[in-house]
Amino acid sequence: MEFKVNSKELEKLLSKIIPAVPSRTPMPILENFLFEIKDGLLTVYATDLEISLKSSLKIVAEENTKILLPAKLLYDVIKSLKDTTIRFDIQSNGKVNLNTDHGKYNLSYLDHEEFPEIPNFPNQDSDADDLNEISLNGSELRFAFEKSSFAMSKEEMRPAMMGTLFEFTEDGLRFVATDGHRLVNYLNKNVKLDMEAQYILPERAVSVLLKILDEKDVKIYLSKTHMSFKLNEYELISRLIKQKYPDYSSVIPLENEFELVVETKELHDVIKRMMLFSTSNTRRVKFSVKQDNLEISAEDLDLGASGTENIQCKYSGDAIDIGFNSSYVNDVLSHLSFEKKIIFKLHSATKAVIILPTEGKENYELMMLLMPVRLNN
Amino acid sequence: MEFKVNSKELEKLLSKIIPAVPSRTPMPILENFLFEIKDGLLTVYATDLEISLKSSLKIVAEENTKILLPAKLLYDVIKSLKDTTIRFDIQSNGKVNLNTDHGKYNLSYLDHEEFPEIPNFPNQDSDADDLNEISLNGSELRFAFEKSSFAMSKEEMRPAMMGTLFEFTEDGLRFVATDGHRLVNYLNKNVKLDMEAQYILPERAVSVLLKILDEKDVKIYLSKTHMSFKLNEYELISRLIKQKYPDYSSVIPLENEFELVVETKELHDVIKRMMLFSTSNTRRVKFSVKQDNLEISAEDLDLGASGTENIQCKYSGDAIDIGFNSSYVNDVLSHLSFEKKIIFKLHSATKAVIILPTEGKENYELMMLLMPVRLNN
Repeated sequence: MEFKVNSKELEKLLSKIIPAVPSRTPMPILENFLFEIKDGLLTVYATDLEISLKSSLKIVAEENTKILLPAKLLYDVIKSLKDTTIRFDIQSNGKVNLNTDHGKYNLSYLDHEEFPEIPNFPNQDSDADDLNEISLNGSELRFAFEKSSFAMSKEEMRPAMMGTLFEFTEDGLRFVATDGHRLVNYLNKNVKLDMEAQYILPERAVSVLLKILDEKDVKIYLSKTHMSFKLNEYELISRLIKQKYPDYSSVIPLENEFELVVETKELHDVIKRMMLFSTSNTRRVKFSVKQDNLEISAEDLDLGASGTENIQCKYSGDAIDIGFNSSYVNDVLSHLSFEKKIIFKLHSATKAVIILPTEGKENYELMMLLMPVRLNN
Repeated sequence: MEFKVNSKELEKLLSKIIPAVPSRTPMPILENFLFEIKDGLLTVYATDLEISLKSSLKIVAEENTKILLPAKLLYDVIKSLKDTTIRFDIQSNGKVNLNTDHGKYNLSYLDHEEFPEIPNFPNQDSDADDLNEISLNGSELRFAFEKSSFAMSKEEMRPAMMGTLFEFTEDGLRFVATDGHRLVNYLNKNVKLDMEAQYILPERAVSVLLKILDEKDVKIYLSKTHMSFKLNEYELISRLIKQKYPDYSSVIPLENEFELVVETKELHDVIKRMMLFSTSNTRRVKFSVKQDNLEISAEDLDLGASGTENIQCKYSGDAIDIGFNSSYVNDVLSHLSFEKKIIFKLHSATKAVIILPTEGKENYELMMLLMPVRLNN
């Protein structure tokens, strides 16, 4: 059978699907795209068993079929072509010819039945009681992921923390990510749903969504086992992490009474320099806070090198010396760089520190938390 | 003792010297800059024993000294500073303090006597008979290296071919690079020196020079053992490769009588696509040349994939099928991309092919050569 498709339209489609193709996998079959042609619609699928992506395109085709095509090679070939019509000629001997005005390319295809089943969700079997549905602005969802995803854990020992928590509360939709050393808590107040529920979306779904979200609305379906994101012709279905998320609220201190206000960029520049001197295991940087003065210092005993800087701040609490992992401070400041000034809420050298924008927002709340590291005096 | 220097001026100086600092070395002492302060002039040196770099800067200093400072850390710290005055305070306990308006950084220094001797060349001991001196436009030297350096060999088995040949001839200064599979021969006709001599400059000197050459004139000193390049306040001294360069002229065929003329960019686009299909060991791409038609094809038996394209050309010789390593063809075309059309001079499927610009140049000659790979028919 044959079908025709424009090279640039197909390239755009494949560029959206290829993020689901695993680069290293013990199951080589996953390195393929599933091409499904049905009634003049080409739908391309890919999956790594955790997430699956699909998108469709109208094409010119007389018949219906399903085949598996080598994802990376096909995408590279399509990308390398100029804007042209490609005639796919699927032969019965396991070969596909791609014909253009200038050239002819020959690929092998595999039987679609070897491919894992692509989840269809929500479907007729979805339990209506268990199924929830929300609509969210794409930019807001992107913002939530951008500000929180860096804090997800990479340690397989704690699978729940390897994802981002979606928590529906009275106040709105809360996104939480933490690795035990730092935590981000973002509340979107625009989403109100009359329920309380928690879902944990794996890291891979978050990172793929960050590549494709734009300002358009996203429809999200949630069940106990899956979450699906629909944007226009594009769909991502992800398994959820079936674990209980740790009780993050218990680590957020309520009575951090000392407030340190600094210019975000000024502090960030200092921290970048201090990272050069905090290269040992703990990557420790020390904040010595006094009345309106913040001294920041780091020392590398192996290199015999150290650095100290002072910046102006607003502070009227008790003088405190407190240590942090400089690279975690750097992460927090990078993700708050859109705020001119920020507040550190402190209590003591051993208690978690809360970092907030100085100005409250109408539509959201954003809070970051850093655990201190021990200072050896 | 103390000295003062502007952060941005020092950054610029160090950025020129750091390319000589080896990133991995069994001699950690080479990971340092040698700072020499003499009569208000700071001279910074670095060496990897093959090449050495030095450059100078006027500073404010009362005394003279020499110390070794950790190159990467110092450069990173200086780069991270704003435009400011740095006061270096060298203490007798092996510590240097760097003081700026905002901060204080403390580094360890080492005794300069542990550093290898920096060659001073040419010097009083240079044998005048053995010493040659030329001046060359920096852009022309850059052009010579840019067009030829990719063809140098990476195989330690043939040390002579791991460098670029400088050959002084009646016709001018010739640059040759080859790895036995491809060869570049560039003749600069502007340099005329009444001598015949060969010098082989190691790859590392070429790659460092490519980072720093601009349009200004370069003074080059040559001896039997060293070559030195002087640009303004900047100097690179390189050891030469003390081997005999292979007789490259014997591999350049003289009677390749068939001329194939193609559009460089059109052929290059096709080759980039064919590289997707020539992924096996030989990376073979096949050229089938007939009257005014060039068919280019490649096949990957492991993937069961192949590609074929046809482009128009000018050709009136005997029909020939000839194979090349596609990635070597790609290299040649990348380095001739400034030419709209190029000529392939062919003789047979087993003989070296010469590739030339279609138009002769007043000031230089540029020739590339590709060895074919066997076609299994």
